Amino acid sequence: MAGNKNAGVTESRRKTTPFREVAILGPGLLGGSLALALRNSANTRLWARRPEAVTEILEQRIAATASVDLREVVDGADLVIFCTPVEAMHDIALRIAPDVRADAVVTDVGSVKERVLHEIGPIFANFIGSHPMAGSEQGGLSAARQNLFDGAVCILTPDSSTNAHALKKLTAFWGALGCEIQFLSPREHDEAIGAISHLPHLTASALARAATSIPGEPQLFAGQGFRDSTRIASGPPPMWAGILLSNREAVRSGIQRLISELENADSLLKNGDEEGLRMFLTEAKLIRDSVRLKQKENGGI
Amino acid sequence: MAGNKNAGVTESRRKTTPFREVAILGPGLLGGSLALALRNSANTRLWARRPEAVTEILEQRIAATASVDLREVVDGADLVIFCTPVEAMHDIALRIAPDVRADAVVTDVGSVKERVLHEIGPIFANFIGSHPMAGSEQGGLSAARQNLFDGAVCILTPDSSTNAHALKKLTAFWGALGCEIQFLSPREHDEAIGAISHLPHLTASALARAATSIPGEPQLFAGQGFRDSTRIASGPPPMWAGILLSNREAVRSGIQRLISELENADSLLKNGDEEGLRMFLTEAKLIRDSVRLKQKENGGI
Repeated sequence: MAGNKNAGVTESRRKTTPFREVAILGPGLLGGSLALALRNSANTRLWARRPEAVTEILEQRIAATASVDLREVVDGADLVIFCTPVEAMHDIALRIAPDVRADAVVTDVGSVKERVLHEIGPIFANFIGSHPMAGSEQGGLSAARQNLFDGAVCILTPDSSTNAHALKKLTAFWGALGCEIQFLSPREHDEAIGAISHLPHLTASALARAATSIPGEPQLFAGQGFRDSTRIASGPPPMWAGILLSNREAVRSGIQRLISELENADSLLKNGDEEGLRMFLTEAKLIRDSVRLKQKENGGI
Repeated sequence: MAGNKNAGVTESRRKTTPFREVAILGPGLLGGSLALALRNSANTRLWARRPEAVTEILEQRIAATASVDLREVVDGADLVIFCTPVEAMHDIALRIAPDVRADAVVTDVGSVKERVLHEIGPIFANFIGSHPMAGSEQGGLSAARQNLFDGAVCILTPDSSTNAHALKKLTAFWGALGCEIQFLSPREHDEAIGAISHLPHLTASALARAATSIPGEPQLFAGQGFRDSTRIASGPPPMWAGILLSNREAVRSGIQRLISELENADSLLKNGDEEGLRMFLTEAKLIRDSVRLKQKENGGI
């Protein structure tokens, strides 16, 4: 569906966004960065739950319009983007439904897609899930930046009921922000992201605990290896608890696969099987190195 | 034993090394970096198994003297440092024993200490294990650099038979290279390092495998979280197989602790226990953040 990806990205970067009136719901890292990225190409309005956040948005000129009033923000918008935690989306969707234009495209930036499609998809005529894979463990509006999406992979998750015209416009939208677009079904998305993003997060947390739960303060001797392998354990616990629970089937199946791998390694160690252990580590290295190479080719980090 | 660590480091950096004739056995990242760091303060001779490595050492002026002849390198040395893989140390120790000065201090830079003490300690009059915690997953002579040890923690592992004068000189030696010295027994060292360094390594490898062993090429969607948490899985498999097997008791006990943590998380997910999951993640975050803060205080990365 994506054709030649690099060519697609280059082409889409030349285009401007096909939406003129964009409502962004939620002023975190992603919502704030979207507003900054769209500053010169669309009329954006940012909704925040707290008045203090509205003040901050306006003072820092993140968006020209910001409000705690949902109706004011979505009124007339041809694109509505949910940037709130997944748990909050359903309630907000019900509240804005009467005021969203019938031809508006509605999307979200949540990191689980089946649950979101199930909970808010049916409320709108043209809902399609998005997952721009950009962000950091340091979230919040203060971390927002204009080029956050530039070069990031953005997964779109159309399903059988998706309107082709709406999908085309949404694809062009993320392309205009510099994203490389990929298409997956919501279930494929959740399984892939559960494995490659949510499982590593939970593993980093479990490792930080297991590596330090012996006498003698081993953390005094933590080197770069420990720091890197547990960095994402610093992410915000409430947000991550929500994400992990929203995708629990995929995460639990990842945990079982990881436990199997650890048990394999344990039995290689128990048997003193040096050749087997080298193979185990070599296969892992090949996987890890192939990701690095692929991303270098694509100009990523 | 270390007293005020920062004061100790500052003081020792002003000192020059108490050794004049230093034999370095093994021209990898650590051996090469040691030779570079000692260039202006001692006569160093570097032993390499392969003639090509000797040529490279001399051409790149890593050491003024390099040879494939062990006797030539250790003859007259007042400090002998094993920088080979742990598996190779015993054989080399037997070969050099007749030529090492009786008053020479002998040490190694291996990342396990009980095995090394057991295998080569009895061969020399003044053996004390060292573990400078410096290095990277990109090893080899080409990665060697003069300031590799500057600011690194170096663990020394004296035991009941250690000569106090030899320990004092070895402490001054690592201090002169910029290391912060810590003292542990060989067993304490192996348990702590098994937990905080060897377990993360094995976990990164197991995670790289588990995160990608589902259909649909999830590695296409690998982000910074996956990259960081599996970075050390790129390390050299033969070296790491040796390290993990040399410290297998501590590593296996770490694997069991990690599996327990993963099973705890799994049951929180299964029960939809959001509060419990937040607590699990919050405790991990506190552990991870405390390491970061401590190391910032100490001027680390």
